[in-house]
Amino acid sequence: MAAQNRLSINQWSMRTTPCEQFISAVAAAGIESVGLWRQNVAEIGVRRAAGLVRGAGLRVSSLCRGGFLTAPTPTGRRAALDDNRRAIDEAHQLGAGVLVMVVGGLDPGQSISRVRDAIPQTIAELAPYAQDAGVRLALEPMHPMFAADRAVISTLGNAVLLAEASGHSSVGVVVDSYHIWWDPQVLDAIAAIGAADRLLSYQVSDWNLPLAPDPLLSRGVMGDGYIDFTELTTAVAATGYCGDVEAEIFNADLWAMPIAESLALVRSRYESLVAPHL
Amino acid sequence: MAAQNRLSINQWSMRTTPCEQFISAVAAAGIESVGLWRQNVAEIGVRRAAGLVRGAGLRVSSLCRGGFLTAPTPTGRRAALDDNRRAIDEAHQLGAGVLVMVVGGLDPGQSISRVRDAIPQTIAELAPYAQDAGVRLALEPMHPMFAADRAVISTLGNAVLLAEASGHSSVGVVVDSYHIWWDPQVLDAIAAIGAADRLLSYQVSDWNLPLAPDPLLSRGVMGDGYIDFTELTTAVAATGYCGDVEAEIFNADLWAMPIAESLALVRSRYESLVAPHL
Repeated sequence: MAAQNRLSINQWSMRTTPCEQFISAVAAAGIESVGLWRQNVAEIGVRRAAGLVRGAGLRVSSLCRGGFLTAPTPTGRRAALDDNRRAIDEAHQLGAGVLVMVVGGLDPGQSISRVRDAIPQTIAELAPYAQDAGVRLALEPMHPMFAADRAVISTLGNAVLLAEASGHSSVGVVVDSYHIWWDPQVLDAIAAIGAADRLLSYQVSDWNLPLAPDPLLSRGVMGDGYIDFTELTTAVAATGYCGDVEAEIFNADLWAMPIAESLALVRSRYESLVAPHL
Repeated sequence: MAAQNRLSINQWSMRTTPCEQFISAVAAAGIESVGLWRQNVAEIGVRRAAGLVRGAGLRVSSLCRGGFLTAPTPTGRRAALDDNRRAIDEAHQLGAGVLVMVVGGLDPGQSISRVRDAIPQTIAELAPYAQDAGVRLALEPMHPMFAADRAVISTLGNAVLLAEASGHSSVGVVVDSYHIWWDPQVLDAIAAIGAADRLLSYQVSDWNLPLAPDPLLSRGVMGDGYIDFTELTTAVAATGYCGDVEAEIFNADLWAMPIAESLALVRSRYESLVAPHL
């Protein structure tokens, strides 16, 4: 597939647009793929959303998100596993081959190393169910500033170790530029993920400064911040990854623009900064 | 030295207290060591500050800070080297054996990996001057959320590699709990730094949530956040590190307290959460 056709728009890059209009705007722009979010899909129901993306001829590069599997109590953990099975079902219905897993953070007093060590076993409980549904679970290392509240997995190197420790070849890793760009081991880790056939998603956004008051919203359009997309994209391409490249940009300025303009901006930056290196 | 006597108070933990009062309050509390900041020392002059700490019988565990060596122009780099030589002179005068190095961030368009690769050579230009002055340069990996604007060194493992690549045995590393607690390789990295005889400073503060609007100010008093001080301190002690443990806590609540109370709080948390593992 030509590089320019591999752009996928993550739904939260256009978060202020309702689900139905989001799908039709992406298709109208001639973009071929979307990344969806469970709560936004829920606004119109999974069945209807699946029908719309199919009718529009779009691929679904991923569904966000499963995870939050680090509850300290058995009850909390059981509830999380149940919710993740529902997320897998939804990914299956939507035709998304990848469910993004934000594994969860800490309760005060929990030791990060012990919580992290328990991840492979929990993922192993879900993996067969996902595999039956044709859905691959993609562990997402998040920026270390989210280690306490969102994801105890902070690096690609750690993510691939934990994926391997799950004992299931279908479990993989998300490479999200915003979360991992700072890592001195990032290029070796991307190569290792590729060698293990576990690179399931490549998401792009830039690291903008100053940090937004809610740091989740500091993600910038590629080219507006500090990330070297040449180096990262070249490393991803060298693994043989041939899936979609998902622009996942939580950014209040982008949300304030008419969707046709924001799609055009994201596409133009994708075409100049990312696609040439795929 | 007994563990309880190894507490050092970093000046910015009590940032609202003028330099002279800070020194006398720490000494009055029976605490034996301080970490000083150049700009606060400058308020009264290095000579006078050195006389005060000596008169009070205090050790100076470190001087903050040198660094900011990543300017993209030769002129900027030369100015930074000159400023670092002045910082080394000041550390020498103050009797601080360690100068903390915050190496600097990026200009937009600079590639983090190339900027990082240039660090050892720049440090090598300073190291002989520091060694002559009896001052060790301590590279401080900072939390990855500061990779773009403050320090392109984000992990202990990378810091020790860069210190070794400088070719000078006097160059070492700061282990600051706030910056490195999330790292899945942290315990191995601490051991490697110890084995290389490069562990020059152990600084403690907690990771509090929510992040403060200025994330530099999210540092918490030990026990108020998510960091496992048992694990980190045990790893530091296992290297044979026998220096001071510097409480470096930038926190508006702490700054609002009378200094005697904030010193008592920090000391009590140090004694219950850190000292038992030294």
